[in-house]
Amino acid sequence: MRYAVLAAGKRVRPILCLASCELVGGEENAAMPAACAVEMIHTMSLIKDDLPCMDNDDLRRGKPTTHKVYGEGVAILSGGALLSLAFEHMTTAEVSSEKMVWAVRELARSIGTRGLVAGQAKDISSEAVLGAIIGGGSNEEVERVRKFARCIGLLFQVVDDILDETKSSEELGKTAGKDQLVGKLTYPKLMGLEKSKEFVKRLTKDACEHLQGFSKEKVAPLVALTNFIANRNR
Amino acid sequence: MRYAVLAAGKRVRPILCLASCELVGGEENAAMPAACAVEMIHTMSLIKDDLPCMDNDDLRRGKPTTHKVYGEGVAILSGGALLSLAFEHMTTAEVSSEKMVWAVRELARSIGTRGLVAGQAKDISSEAVLGAIIGGGSNEEVERVRKFARCIGLLFQVVDDILDETKSSEELGKTAGKDQLVGKLTYPKLMGLEKSKEFVKRLTKDACEHLQGFSKEKVAPLVALTNFIANRNR
Repeated sequence: MRYAVLAAGKRVRPILCLASCELVGGEENAAMPAACAVEMIHTMSLIKDDLPCMDNDDLRRGKPTTHKVYGEGVAILSGGALLSLAFEHMTTAEVSSEKMVWAVRELARSIGTRGLVAGQAKDISSEAVLGAIIGGGSNEEVERVRKFARCIGLLFQVVDDILDETKSSEELGKTAGKDQLVGKLTYPKLMGLEKSKEFVKRLTKDACEHLQGFSKEKVAPLVALTNFIANRNR
Repeated sequence: MRYAVLAAGKRVRPILCLASCELVGGEENAAMPAACAVEMIHTMSLIKDDLPCMDNDDLRRGKPTTHKVYGEGVAILSGGALLSLAFEHMTTAEVSSEKMVWAVRELARSIGTRGLVAGQAKDISSEAVLGAIIGGGSNEEVERVRKFARCIGLLFQVVDDILDETKSSEELGKTAGKDQLVGKLTYPKLMGLEKSKEFVKRLTKDACEHLQGFSKEKVAPLVALTNFIANRNR
């Protein structure tokens, strides 16, 4: 569990969770257990994706995949344990029980048949939504945060597709050129590389527009995160 | 998910959850989502246990195992989806948010590195504890229910070991004689078959003693369940 979680990830999800909490006026500390929870669940999904019976991948976050090091059995158990630890840890957050039940339901939905398991690994809206719930956001604020996060989730996916086509495995820290290999329908394949890059610009702009109305100071970290996702090299 | 959950299980866990809820004065309906949740999580653990990289088993609940029918990838995804659905479904129970957060934490702990993943598959105390929490039990009542359930969990294990040695795969609906095959240290091996049967009687008595002080009417289903576990043939 430590090997997989503490590897050099980008931590986009926990950052998104924390910044969303602050966006609606909450304290960073309040959302920390939820931020750790979303990173644990993200890691669980990476461990599963890399298994021999799934994508059968050897490299992740610049290191050999968990099952390569510890074997398939331990990898599968680690994934399940990370998932339950995520729920357990999230319940330690200092928020009202009402908010916590809402957050548990949101987290569970983001994983299940309509979430992660449906293959929507790049839908990172729940991470932001969790932060906004715990930060004390109103229903309307939570929904605006969800729209913003869906936008940058799509942005993340388009950039992922571009990087997979244009970068080496060494540069990415995971196997490159895989989309081509498995015949995945990517954005570059669908609309060409140039149009995909324009789409990245468009999505960046759209995402930031959803943040209008919140205080400028609180919006800044999320704008920076959006730009990071749009311009990242791995 | 349906194939695995709706197969002919004994439903000991959900029954235990419902009866524990009623024991402390709660309504059966209140604990129904938690009862379904524990059966989903139990099923998830069976799916995982049967995987080729774990026990590599072909038969479960009288049918081919999930990965035999749907493949390993789908089996692993089903397990994860059942786990998250369990949490999501449990939050639909009509109890106070305080009780629900307590129940979520209890459920998560029962799965993680100190629970299921640690291999204590026969510790069924959390099922009973969940029912008692949701039924509105006091801390003292919840702890007495936990002691009762630990007792019948151990009872369950001893009987399992005896059955594995003395019954056929056909009679059990799962592969028999496995403990011998994998060199597991079972109770019959440790203390002999006769002493194991005496231990079953002793545990049955101990379990029922933990129920003293609750109303006779409410205790009856749990005594019946204890006797069922002690005298079952599969």
